[in-house]
Amino acid sequence: MIVPVVLSGGAGTRLWPVSRKSYPKQFCALLGKDTPFQETVQRTKTLGLEAEPIVVGNREHRFIMAEQLRQVGVEAASIILEPVARNSAAAMAAAAFWQARYDEEAILWFMPADAAIENHAALKEALDQACEAARQDYIVTFGIRPTRAETGYGYIQQGHLLEGQENAYHIARFLEKPDAERAAQFVQDGQHLWNSGMFVARARVFLEELKKYEPTIHEAVSRAVQKTDCDLGFVQLDGDAFSRAPSISVDYAVAERTDRAAVVPSGFSWMDVGSWDAVWELTPKDENGNAVRGNVFLDRARNCYVNSDGVVATVTGVDDLIIIVTGDAVMVSHREQAQDIRHMVARLRDEGRPEAEQHVRMYRPWGFYESLIRGDRFQVKRIHVSPGEKLSLQKHFHRAEHWVVVAGTALVTRDDEEITVRENESVYLPLGCVHRLENPGRIPVTLIEVQSGPYLGEDDIVRLDDVYKR
Amino acid sequence: MIVPVVLSGGAGTRLWPVSRKSYPKQFCALLGKDTPFQETVQRTKTLGLEAEPIVVGNREHRFIMAEQLRQVGVEAASIILEPVARNSAAAMAAAAFWQARYDEEAILWFMPADAAIENHAALKEALDQACEAARQDYIVTFGIRPTRAETGYGYIQQGHLLEGQENAYHIARFLEKPDAERAAQFVQDGQHLWNSGMFVARARVFLEELKKYEPTIHEAVSRAVQKTDCDLGFVQLDGDAFSRAPSISVDYAVAERTDRAAVVPSGFSWMDVGSWDAVWELTPKDENGNAVRGNVFLDRARNCYVNSDGVVATVTGVDDLIIIVTGDAVMVSHREQAQDIRHMVARLRDEGRPEAEQHVRMYRPWGFYESLIRGDRFQVKRIHVSPGEKLSLQKHFHRAEHWVVVAGTALVTRDDEEITVRENESVYLPLGCVHRLENPGRIPVTLIEVQSGPYLGEDDIVRLDDVYKR
Repeated sequence: MIVPVVLSGGAGTRLWPVSRKSYPKQFCALLGKDTPFQETVQRTKTLGLEAEPIVVGNREHRFIMAEQLRQVGVEAASIILEPVARNSAAAMAAAAFWQARYDEEAILWFMPADAAIENHAALKEALDQACEAARQDYIVTFGIRPTRAETGYGYIQQGHLLEGQENAYHIARFLEKPDAERAAQFVQDGQHLWNSGMFVARARVFLEELKKYEPTIHEAVSRAVQKTDCDLGFVQLDGDAFSRAPSISVDYAVAERTDRAAVVPSGFSWMDVGSWDAVWELTPKDENGNAVRGNVFLDRARNCYVNSDGVVATVTGVDDLIIIVTGDAVMVSHREQAQDIRHMVARLRDEGRPEAEQHVRMYRPWGFYESLIRGDRFQVKRIHVSPGEKLSLQKHFHRAEHWVVVAGTALVTRDDEEITVRENESVYLPLGCVHRLENPGRIPVTLIEVQSGPYLGEDDIVRLDDVYKR
Repeated sequence: MIVPVVLSGGAGTRLWPVSRKSYPKQFCALLGKDTPFQETVQRTKTLGLEAEPIVVGNREHRFIMAEQLRQVGVEAASIILEPVARNSAAAMAAAAFWQARYDEEAILWFMPADAAIENHAALKEALDQACEAARQDYIVTFGIRPTRAETGYGYIQQGHLLEGQENAYHIARFLEKPDAERAAQFVQDGQHLWNSGMFVARARVFLEELKKYEPTIHEAVSRAVQKTDCDLGFVQLDGDAFSRAPSISVDYAVAERTDRAAVVPSGFSWMDVGSWDAVWELTPKDENGNAVRGNVFLDRARNCYVNSDGVVATVTGVDDLIIIVTGDAVMVSHREQAQDIRHMVARLRDEGRPEAEQHVRMYRPWGFYESLIRGDRFQVKRIHVSPGEKLSLQKHFHRAEHWVVVAGTALVTRDDEEITVRENESVYLPLGCVHRLENPGRIPVTLIEVQSGPYLGEDDIVRLDDVYKR
């Protein structure tokens, strides 16, 4: 029995402004119809594995994960929530401790939620070989045979074949991202593999090695799992305990230090979809080398990646650019500078610009909202409430609200009244009234909210009751 | 007595997406606080001239012209409206005929509304010299001594000094935009001047020469002026007559053919603000050669022009780009390709994209509106009504409307009722009701309109009464 563990902790700032801290890349459909997270949670089914995946992700993203699982019809065995981001060693430890409560000999297949994988037959073969080694208590990683001199990945130098194994090798050493010359050498010598970040290991073995090399992480996560709070279908790790774990990648914490590390070389198509140049690589192109998505108009452009989920992006007489247009930010970069976008995002964040980390569309457990316009003393929002969901019972001290329902049927609580508001009907919520919005129906409610008042901050809210326990 | 004539007929597609047919460049403040149109109508006052300017412009822009004149406190002698665009010869003829009704010997100073001029003392000196020649019945143009090998302008080759003139010369010939080599030669030889498009001539003289070389234009515009309809403060040229005039520039129609042409060379600073590279030239730059306007964030950019009147435009690791962000379009071009943006706009228009010619903000005689969001069966608009103005009395067959006033006080007619709607109040207009929106107050009304219905096109409107006679 193999238990898949999907690691969904990345922030993906190199894919800004589509990917942001509040809604990072693994949840963004940049290539196909499904998001990388959805591709990953479905991979186990694609490969014919029986067990449902354990998902480990940031607490902030819990409702996004739940919604994206629902969309593709995958039921996670557990959704383990990290109260703070503590890198891959702690995230993997959380899943291992969780699984070990039931079966510490279980073989876990850890996979980051942000890689693009094709050729599932080759993947399945590699997985079988990795499990074979994991049964002999190895911590096994997948090494991808390089097809180009990539400088954006880490590498693994392959050692000798392990005794009794068909295709599992000792790891000679892990190598950081190389320069172009060394990368070219690695492709040639046939001894170096891309480090995919996927691992297969028994829960017990992983935890033993973690305890040996990083006892602080082991201790902190062990306590965090003991004190979990299971609520609304999520496994919430204890925040005090978990935050004591140092933030270290599994490579540094365990894989580079343990003598139980092994690597299975394989030739399946694997790509870290971590930057816009990678997205350009993976997207079909026109005869001029341009890859586009969304509302785009090209005129004498070459080798560009252009993506707009909003207004029309027109491009004329340029080469090798990345141009991204979203509802609240435009980003233009040279394709060869795509790795450095994160530095600009860090600068944006340091200057206190909300676009750095927040999206204009804010996801909430009940649906989402987005601000359409903000003026002096007024703001207009679009609010989307999923069927069966309800917002908190709340009141405001500084604003009145007009709600116009434009799709679906809403049930509105206003002080002592309960009002059914249909499409093309409106309701007025005077300043100070206690109110709640609910969608009792079978289709989403779309509502236009016009706020009026001298102060319109999100913090002017008193929550009197909330089904999502916020 | 010199009568200034401001020619405001350009379309300015090279400055797309800020400049569009519905709101072209002369009305857009790209450099200073005032628009080129406003700079131009104020120039006569700056130079100490007494006469108020005659303005000639497209009928579609009449309320924009009136509003922009009002903003800078200039009262035009007349605003002459072209029912269709017929290039500069016909536009100048219209002003000449109009002035000739009162005084055919009047000296007219024609100036396009889209040039940036500095050094007013030198301009005044050139104007005095031009008037001196115009009094001797010359049609005088201003030639600017070139300061660089500009390939984007037409040139004038200067001939011999006119008898009795201090600084007015025969024109040897007009020259089209040269290639770089010839442009460099023109700068060196000291005989070539930039063609500024400004002219000074007696009304009678201009019309005599027009009649000689382009009798069809003379005849058509003469009739169009005879049949003008003066209404709401505008001089509306007769459409049938005016549209019979061929669309020819004054250079081709008159200046290159008449032996009365003269040129006054001058050294005042003049620039045709016709393309984004010119705007970059004219805008102050940072130490890396970048010029920005609006909501812009630069990171390792060089020699770029970036302008956003909307969401943040972030730029990283690129050189020599033009990046323009507006509420409904993004445009990225190489700076050296800036002249070719018009070809892309033509392609956009041919593909039926509304962004090619229409702005998201639509100006109306009573104010403006803009669409905030358009969904399935609903649309949200922001409507701005200037003090004292009123929309037409109207009704719709396919939509109901919710109006929420968020600033000012509106007077709403709804069938037989008259309702005063204050800030933070709303009114519902059911499908089919006859309604009107009016601002009886002293400050603007801002109103959020939520439309609901199966068809939301602008053409679902029956106008029962309209103070602006649309």
